[in-house]
Amino acid sequence: MSQMIPAERSVRVNLGDRSYDILIGPGLIAEAGREIAARLKGRRVAVITDENVAPRYLETLMASLAQSGIEAVSLVLPAGEKTKSFDCLIPVCDAILGARIERNDAVIALGGGVIGDLTGFAAGIVRRGSRFIQIPTSLLAQVDSSVGGKTGINSPHGKNLIGVFHQPDLVLADTGVLDTLSQREFRAGYAEVAKYGLIDKPEFFHWLEQNWQAVFAGGGARIEAIAVSCQAKADVVAADERENGLRALLNLGHTFGHALEAATEYDSHRLVHGEGVAVGMVLAYEFSARMNLASPDDARRVEAHLRAVGLPTRMADIPGMLPPAERLMEAIAQDKKVKGGKLTFILTRGIGHSFVADDVPASEVLSFLKEKHPQ
Amino acid sequence: MSQMIPAERSVRVNLGDRSYDILIGPGLIAEAGREIAARLKGRRVAVITDENVAPRYLETLMASLAQSGIEAVSLVLPAGEKTKSFDCLIPVCDAILGARIERNDAVIALGGGVIGDLTGFAAGIVRRGSRFIQIPTSLLAQVDSSVGGKTGINSPHGKNLIGVFHQPDLVLADTGVLDTLSQREFRAGYAEVAKYGLIDKPEFFHWLEQNWQAVFAGGGARIEAIAVSCQAKADVVAADERENGLRALLNLGHTFGHALEAATEYDSHRLVHGEGVAVGMVLAYEFSARMNLASPDDARRVEAHLRAVGLPTRMADIPGMLPPAERLMEAIAQDKKVKGGKLTFILTRGIGHSFVADDVPASEVLSFLKEKHPQ
Ligand SMILES: NC(=O)c1ccc[n+]([C@@H]2O[C@H](COP(=O)([O-])OP(=O)(O)OC[C@H]3O[C@@H](n4cnc5c(N)ncnc54)[C@H](O)[C@@H]3O)[C@@H](O)[C@H]2O)c1
Ligand SMILES: NC(=O)c1ccc[n+]([C@@H]2O[C@H](COP(=O)([O-])OP(=O)(O)OC[C@H]3O[C@@H](n4cnc5c(N)ncnc54)[C@H](O)[C@@H]3O)[C@@H](O)[C@H]2O)c1
Ligand SMILES: [Zn+2]
Ligand SMILES: [Zn+2]
Repeated sequence: MSQMIPAERSVRVNLGDRSYDILIGPGLIAEAGREIAARLKGRRVAVITDENVAPRYLETLMASLAQSGIEAVSLVLPAGEKTKSFDCLIPVCDAILGARIERNDAVIALGGGVIGDLTGFAAGIVRRGSRFIQIPTSLLAQVDSSVGGKTGINSPHGKNLIGVFHQPDLVLADTGVLDTLSQREFRAGYAEVAKYGLIDKPEFFHWLEQNWQAVFAGGGARIEAIAVSCQAKADVVAADERENGLRALLNLGHTFGHALEAATEYDSHRLVHGEGVAVGMVLAYEFSARMNLASPDDARRVEAHLRAVGLPTRMADIPGMLPPAERLMEAIAQDKKVKGGKLTFILTRGIGHSFVADDVPASEVLSFLKEKHPQ
Repeated sequence: MSQMIPAERSVRVNLGDRSYDILIGPGLIAEAGREIAARLKGRRVAVITDENVAPRYLETLMASLAQSGIEAVSLVLPAGEKTKSFDCLIPVCDAILGARIERNDAVIALGGGVIGDLTGFAAGIVRRGSRFIQIPTSLLAQVDSSVGGKTGINSPHGKNLIGVFHQPDLVLADTGVLDTLSQREFRAGYAEVAKYGLIDKPEFFHWLEQNWQAVFAGGGARIEAIAVSCQAKADVVAADERENGLRALLNLGHTFGHALEAATEYDSHRLVHGEGVAVGMVLAYEFSARMNLASPDDARRVEAHLRAVGLPTRMADIPGMLPPAERLMEAIAQDKKVKGGKLTFILTRGIGHSFVADDVPASEVLSFLKEKHPQ
């Protein structure tokens, strides 16, 4: 990791004529008008945000847009996962069309992953695809959901089941706004940052072990951690835009994590996504050790770091009762589909050496879960 | 045109690894199970249809699917343009997810363009894109809407404003089912058939002038006309999937047509889409003559043919009052966007010699409309 950390960074997502920039640094919302005007032919935007973000940052954004001669309307939605629904999608589409956003204009998402996923979906379907700008305001959105073009809403049948691939034209990650994010949400996003190290960047994980307090504090180390994370995601997305292969690595910790989210009924008081991923990554490392793929020391090292930052790392850390191992296994099987008793899983040979294993015996996973979570 | 007309035809839409077949012939619904089983890895489908089509053809389709070992669920929606709405999209998505349609399974649209557009959109967004089979049952759907991947619903702000490009994996055009289509709907679809001749197939238009009664009667001539139309649309779609250029030619007659649909408030008692296109094509030919691009004889020939089949060809043929020329002009400007007083229009140099003109003076269009439609 470089010692000289610049105040602003940029990462390019290479997707041919749909390539785009991610700008990372403090104060970017106040500069949004200039950055957008420099890239957009049109002079009209619709801004979608939520009720936590709006009082803090909407005015700054609107003023910056106005200063650059960009006409903007805004729509403020309730905060929270329930907003990723048809109920909210419909007014968002209406707002975009009502603002007469056309071919050269753009739709802007100002908020966390919920606003980004919903707004990106609306941008993807209005006029069969409209320009889209992400201004992610949570750490999770800055390092994960705003990059890569996956958009969507939830269905009564499951999370993220309805959506489209629709790449943004620009991502503005204002690292300053993370100061108002709750510690818990910041930590949850941090789990995804650590994930990039654990997938294939051992030195980055090592750097995080040394520098995580500086990342939490803000400033250069935070920018650096976000830039490395965005670069990691950008590389995977450029190589596998539609998640046919490599992109699956990004699911490290997510198979267990999703099962735990389902088991806690997506109740954010008990577990938020990043927390599930933290517990899930530890489980993935432990399971890899049990399969004699990695050393148990690596699992212990992963757990020690995540625990140090304040993340849950064991099933027992999750408040309330969890269903028995068999029920968790059912959730995993639903998420992943079992073929001939075998599962696809992201496993690891050590810190930063993860891989896609597509022949994991479901029976091994079940006995592992029973061991970890005895009734 | 060939004299030996086979009982079944097929047209291939060339789109690289998303290429697909259009099969055209009588009795294809009864053979759907076999055709689908031969192409689909999965063994589960969800069939979406409407209340006019279901009592006539749903049982045949379900039986054919069952015979080929394909498990199917079905959903019957109200008929009519209002079905292209979020109100119907939501239950369609629900039905698809409830049927556990996965990567190798498929969603089937059995119906006219309304069911095709709505179902294709749902297939395009469930799991960010599911396999999709079109079984178009109206002439318009067989020769136009089922081919090319444009899907979508209407918004209070306008028609087809929300949707995605999502190509089908197979189109089964059962020409036998057109026998139960109302004469009026058949004629409306026929306007789009004639359109392909008028765009760039002068001999096809000539053939239609000779053979239209056989096309209306059914049998080989009908299959031939549908196959030529599908081939024409397939060629345009392969050359310009996302409508950036050439595909605009398919809008011959549609700029005037859409303005008339808007002027009649999409009231199908007064005007259905194909009727608007018929009047619009005559207007496009007349306007081209007025601009000294084509001979007035060509406009007269187009009108004579469309009138012979029973289509409206003049604004005065539309029942009820039309708004003044100025209001029609506003609708055109909304549809097309005026740049510096200039419009993009599909004009013609004669039968089968249409082209995209992007510098048509709006003032000329207005005085032409005033002439055609004096108050
Ligand atoms: N599209 C993808 O590739 C992808 C990847 C990962 C996660 N996701 C999705 O992202 C969502 C989770 O994202 P999230 O964690 O950002 O959730 P979120 O959008 O709900 O944000 C978390 C909370 O923080 C608030 N908030 C956001 N920014 C703030 C700020 N700067 N100051 C104060 N409060 C702020 C929000 O109002 C919300 O209450 C999930 O729906 C998940 O499915 C998508
Ligand atoms: N996607 C595209 O590229 C594209 C192109 C052109 C038109 N469209 C859309 O297509 C729609 C119009 O399509 P349409 O004209 O087929 O309308 P439609 O689907 O409403 O069908 C017309 C009527 O015929 C009935 N019907 C259909 N098949 C029948 C049969 N075999 N026997 C008896 N009744 C039958 C239907 O129930 C309906 O009442 C419009 O919404 C238009 O926007 C889409
Ligand atoms: Zn995640
Ligand atoms: Zn048409």
